Amino acid sequence: MAGNTFGNLFKLTTFGESHGAAIGGVLDGCPPGIVLDLEAIQKELNRRKPGQSAIVTQRKEPDTVEFFSGIFEGMTTGTPIGFAIYNTNQKSGDYSHIKDSYRPSHADYVYDKKYGFRDYRGGGRSSARETASRVVAGAIAKQFLSTIQINAFVSQVGNLKLDKDYQNLDFSLIESNPVRCPDPEMAAKMEDYIKDIRKEGDTIGGVITCVIQNVPIGLGEPVFDKLHAELGKAMLSINAVKGFEFGSGFEGVKMKGSEHNDQYNEDGSTKTNHSGGIQGGISNGMDIYFNVAFKPVATVIQPYDTIDKKGNKVTTKGKGRHDPCVVPRAVPIVEAMAALVLAEYTLLARTIKL
Amino acid sequence: MAGNTFGNLFKLTTFGESHGAAIGGVLDGCPPGIVLDLEAIQKELNRRKPGQSAIVTQRKEPDTVEFFSGIFEGMTTGTPIGFAIYNTNQKSGDYSHIKDSYRPSHADYVYDKKYGFRDYRGGGRSSARETASRVVAGAIAKQFLSTIQINAFVSQVGNLKLDKDYQNLDFSLIESNPVRCPDPEMAAKMEDYIKDIRKEGDTIGGVITCVIQNVPIGLGEPVFDKLHAELGKAMLSINAVKGFEFGSGFEGVKMKGSEHNDQYNEDGSTKTNHSGGIQGGISNGMDIYFNVAFKPVATVIQPYDTIDKKGNKVTTKGKGRHDPCVVPRAVPIVEAMAALVLAEYTLLARTIKL
Amino acid sequence: MAGNTFGNLFKLTTFGESHGAAIGGVLDGCPPGIVLDLEAIQKELNRRKPGQSAIVTQRKEPDTVEFFSGIFEGMTTGTPIGFAIYNTNQKSGDYSHIKDSYRPSHADYVYDKKYGFRDYRGGGRSSARETASRVVAGAIAKQFLSTIQINAFVSQVGNLKLDKDYQNLDFSLIESNPVRCPDPEMAAKMEDYIKDIRKEGDTIGGVITCVIQNVPIGLGEPVFDKLHAELGKAMLSINAVKGFEFGSGFEGVKMKGSEHNDQYNEDGSTKTNHSGGIQGGISNGMDIYFNVAFKPVATVIQPYDTIDKKGNKVTTKGKGRHDPCVVPRAVPIVEAMAALVLAEYTLLARTIKL
Amino acid sequence: MAGNTFGNLFKLTTFGESHGAAIGGVLDGCPPGIVLDLEAIQKELNRRKPGQSAIVTQRKEPDTVEFFSGIFEGMTTGTPIGFAIYNTNQKSGDYSHIKDSYRPSHADYVYDKKYGFRDYRGGGRSSARETASRVVAGAIAKQFLSTIQINAFVSQVGNLKLDKDYQNLDFSLIESNPVRCPDPEMAAKMEDYIKDIRKEGDTIGGVITCVIQNVPIGLGEPVFDKLHAELGKAMLSINAVKGFEFGSGFEGVKMKGSEHNDQYNEDGSTKTNHSGGIQGGISNGMDIYFNVAFKPVATVIQPYDTIDKKGNKVTTKGKGRHDPCVVPRAVPIVEAMAALVLAEYTLLARTIKL
Repeated sequence: MAGNTFGNLFKLTTFGESHGAAIGGVLDGCPPGIVLDLEAIQKELNRRKPGQSAIVTQRKEPDTVEFFSGIFEGMTTGTPIGFAIYNTNQKSGDYSHIKDSYRPSHADYVYDKKYGFRDYRGGGRSSARETASRVVAGAIAKQFLSTIQINAFVSQVGNLKLDKDYQNLDFSLIESNPVRCPDPEMAAKMEDYIKDIRKEGDTIGGVITCVIQNVPIGLGEPVFDKLHAELGKAMLSINAVKGFEFGSGFEGVKMKGSEHNDQYNEDGSTKTNHSGGIQGGISNGMDIYFNVAFKPVATVIQPYDTIDKKGNKVTTKGKGRHDPCVVPRAVPIVEAMAALVLAEYTLLARTIKL
Repeated sequence: MAGNTFGNLFKLTTFGESHGAAIGGVLDGCPPGIVLDLEAIQKELNRRKPGQSAIVTQRKEPDTVEFFSGIFEGMTTGTPIGFAIYNTNQKSGDYSHIKDSYRPSHADYVYDKKYGFRDYRGGGRSSARETASRVVAGAIAKQFLSTIQINAFVSQVGNLKLDKDYQNLDFSLIESNPVRCPDPEMAAKMEDYIKDIRKEGDTIGGVITCVIQNVPIGLGEPVFDKLHAELGKAMLSINAVKGFEFGSGFEGVKMKGSEHNDQYNEDGSTKTNHSGGIQGGISNGMDIYFNVAFKPVATVIQPYDTIDKKGNKVTTKGKGRHDPCVVPRAVPIVEAMAALVLAEYTLLARTIKL
Repeated sequence: MAGNTFGNLFKLTTFGESHGAAIGGVLDGCPPGIVLDLEAIQKELNRRKPGQSAIVTQRKEPDTVEFFSGIFEGMTTGTPIGFAIYNTNQKSGDYSHIKDSYRPSHADYVYDKKYGFRDYRGGGRSSARETASRVVAGAIAKQFLSTIQINAFVSQVGNLKLDKDYQNLDFSLIESNPVRCPDPEMAAKMEDYIKDIRKEGDTIGGVITCVIQNVPIGLGEPVFDKLHAELGKAMLSINAVKGFEFGSGFEGVKMKGSEHNDQYNEDGSTKTNHSGGIQGGISNGMDIYFNVAFKPVATVIQPYDTIDKKGNKVTTKGKGRHDPCVVPRAVPIVEAMAALVLAEYTLLARTIKL
Repeated sequence: MAGNTFGNLFKLTTFGESHGAAIGGVLDGCPPGIVLDLEAIQKELNRRKPGQSAIVTQRKEPDTVEFFSGIFEGMTTGTPIGFAIYNTNQKSGDYSHIKDSYRPSHADYVYDKKYGFRDYRGGGRSSARETASRVVAGAIAKQFLSTIQINAFVSQVGNLKLDKDYQNLDFSLIESNPVRCPDPEMAAKMEDYIKDIRKEGDTIGGVITCVIQNVPIGLGEPVFDKLHAELGKAMLSINAVKGFEFGSGFEGVKMKGSEHNDQYNEDGSTKTNHSGGIQGGISNGMDIYFNVAFKPVATVIQPYDTIDKKGNKVTTKGKGRHDPCVVPRAVPIVEAMAALVLAEYTLLARTIKL
């Protein structure tokens, strides 16, 4: 399968290289009659946009989405929604130094080996710029879901880890700081740390936590298409992601069954929620929550050794305008992918209505 | 999408409830002309089988696979391979106590809510018994892949964590003990611990590590179908899994880019392998390795409170013959799912041959 | 895509060669709570069964379907329905004469070329025996659809063509004769003709007409998955089919738009129905009707020249017990495939409910 | 499944309404390294373009395709090819008369019923304008296939039917006349006839024959995805198509098996080709040929009765600039869809290479 499509019923196909004419996509299967708030879509894009604060890349890209189809008189028509974001600020010259050599821990090498050659301008298709298209489609998915709340935030940067449960956080504070951490004290620490990292010309990893609330019971399919399996795939498909855990996650392996089991209240809710809102792959109405691990950005502004196409050693240095830490800008991407998964399963759940 | 199919080109569809007539599946898309070692397939099934040691469930199920089609004169024909494993040892009586009440942290409740009713005998379709069909198909995938080595093993049980790198382990020892941990000393500790847990009528979680070696460069698809995203989905679709990480994983978030980046050798291999053998979703020829977190089995042989269908409180007690720790038997399942993913991407890679 | 799956939401995967252990399939996605009449399923199979009359093949196959899963206490559970029909009457010896040579207008040659070898017993996977699995799944689809009526019948055998409109036929007479033509006079002529053809050791083609009534408005998807496009694919996937037309079909090309256009009544129905119940790929509530052309069966009981694997000329003669005309037994297959298509689109239509 | 995607490995997704900002698509899965002749793509579009001759609609649309991605330094990169054709000549005013009433034999009524409302400007998504995107993708598919020749031509208009076998036609004459019939004498008759029909304000149907030559043996998949089944679906998905037949087609039903069977030559080719180049769903190396029936265009420039949204009778008259006969402009569309099908199966065939 050509791998640029996500979903089957609520289906997004994206296209575009970071330095081509445009990126964009087609969202097919969005039900008709959804009144779309186009400003809200652009606002999501702005959350992902470069240059929005001092701790992200200073590239200037307007990232304005243009819709071609599927919307008429302010509503979705049920037909495919085509859209594009034109690339207006490519500085292809910035990438000439990587034309013939491979940046460590980038996709340059494998693209060359797999496809025989590559569009070497800024990562081409492997650039995280592609995720802007996901944010557009995810913003539409959010509006379709309407009653389900999806909130993602930064919960770790390097060793700085927020150790509060999400129940003790105020999600309205997520956008109050450039890190997108809802704990102001921790956010300030993280911000300072990222600034230090940037000064070193280095980068650092982080974790995004996502909480989905007000989920109806019954989303998710046995056996292979469990809700958390698809969420996991969605998150792992985001650039730089190295891990996914939901509910009790990796910590849960240390627990005994008698501790881990979530006891029922009489209304079917549970006293604890180690399950993370999903049982047997199907939502049980409790909050869904999960963590997504991002590695440090590979582009460092330091000299490094690498090889060129012929296998000769070369020494070079990262250039360009990159992020010292990817997680602040990745928050809306995590939310977008979660929304796409939930929209898909919402449509699927309708097919077996009793 | 009905959720009982995995893969598109190397495609497995499974069927069957734990206490129905049979479980089984159809493997479609396996190329023709593969000489099949049927004993090797049965051997994989035996690794997953109940009753194989003192630390797993003592249910006795022969779990013999019967093939219906797709194999002729010892070779795959390119047509679908249909197979079944008959259920011969169901004790449905064991489950009468759960007919009308919901076991905590099981799928009982969500199946009832989603489908309106359920096959309440032993978990029905949500039973891990379904994974036997995956092991059959995965064993065929392994034979198709032939040159790629896939080794999974138990690396953690509760707090007992193997802290050796996989490079310092001897995979030939995996099957030398019932825990399937290749470090004999740690294996003995884990075995004792699981026995203690069983005596308490309790259960414990664990981690399986999987290492895939001799992978050709170029498996995996951008953008949504990254190799690790599909591996993640495959693992998260296994019963009781709560997390997946590959390469540097969750630990990698604490690293700086300058440390994390894998520098190239002149032959294109890398000096370190924080990437876990995958760049931009595509295999780079280095070892692929990942961890899979399993929660403690939900069925404990202790009294517990729960609710019945009408929302009334009831007190009951787990019965039946269950596993105190699922990871030893899950090792072949992890390998099977990894093999299915690699087989799919091997076929996909052929479509763009240069 | 491995080609043994039909449908996405109401999804049938079949397996099995004509002379292996069994044929069968997995039907995934059937909604839960459908009370199944298992006898009605077997009855559909019996309509397709060999040996049912003097004008069909005299092979004796009981063709009894065995269900493995997905049905509990008489109802569908929403989980995959696995089933098999064991092959009990294979006379593999009958086919030894074709092991090394290619029967004209059979799939022997292309299977050998495509797959490198083939299961030469009775056509293997290319045998029309596979369609028994479709009839099982189609019979379940019919029960799911319930209010939609699907009636297929033989409308042409060789040059004998029924020239009545379907509105002037009594569908209750379809099963009153072995030809399955609802016009008794024409049926008698066709029966005599087929008997003559059989005496010659020859075969003859025919046409099946299918009428679908009481279809809700709105089934079908633009653009590529138009309802009639999927019906066409479904019919063309049946062995020996060479053509498909719906509504005015090939005759419609001779008409002018002013004649062909279906004028509306005030209730949205149309005065004529050249459209065949489908506009723009979507059902409009009028009857859907279409014709399916079947070529003469390739196996003739006459001497013929052909080539062997090495390209040497050989003369041989058809043996075995074959049908002189395939259309009487193909009637339930056409209905089954129509039911599968309608079930798929019924589920799809639910996803955009307003 | 959202229905705007065709193919799985060589996958086209289209978007766009006739009177929105743009139509276009994403072609995913095209192998890397194909040197693209962009002029040849535009030339195919020009064959489909309105206003090219006196017998087609006189709308003026430049129909210039703009590529966004997937092409770098003149070659396909293996990444998705995004493209758009901007709508520059919409006269939305022309359609105000159909805003509230339903044109007979158009999709207006079913779109309103299915989606709750519709983009009423010129047919919206159901407009044949969508097929321009198919022609773009098909032109790329043709270049990918390179050695396979695909030639379609008009073989019937109304009662005027070309009765020569395709072997006796010179395909180089197809583009020599506006009808796209390779027999100059018949082409002249057809042209005159279409002009007469236009004068009446009426329309007429027709048949396109397509011949595919130099096809490798082995394209096509059993069982449901037979090559001719997918070709049939592809053709039936084109606007106004009512029928599809390949090889002997509907005429073949009158033949006896002894006549119809194609006898082998020693090289594996056949003396006759009633099979139409496909056996058991798989290409056998002989020419593939098929006929596609198109109904008369529904828009006639004559007064007609219809109903409005409330079910009231209204009398109106067709306006706009429409085609009196659709087949001349549909020739490149038929070729494009054939090319997409063959590209898909070419990639699929690679997955089982021996």
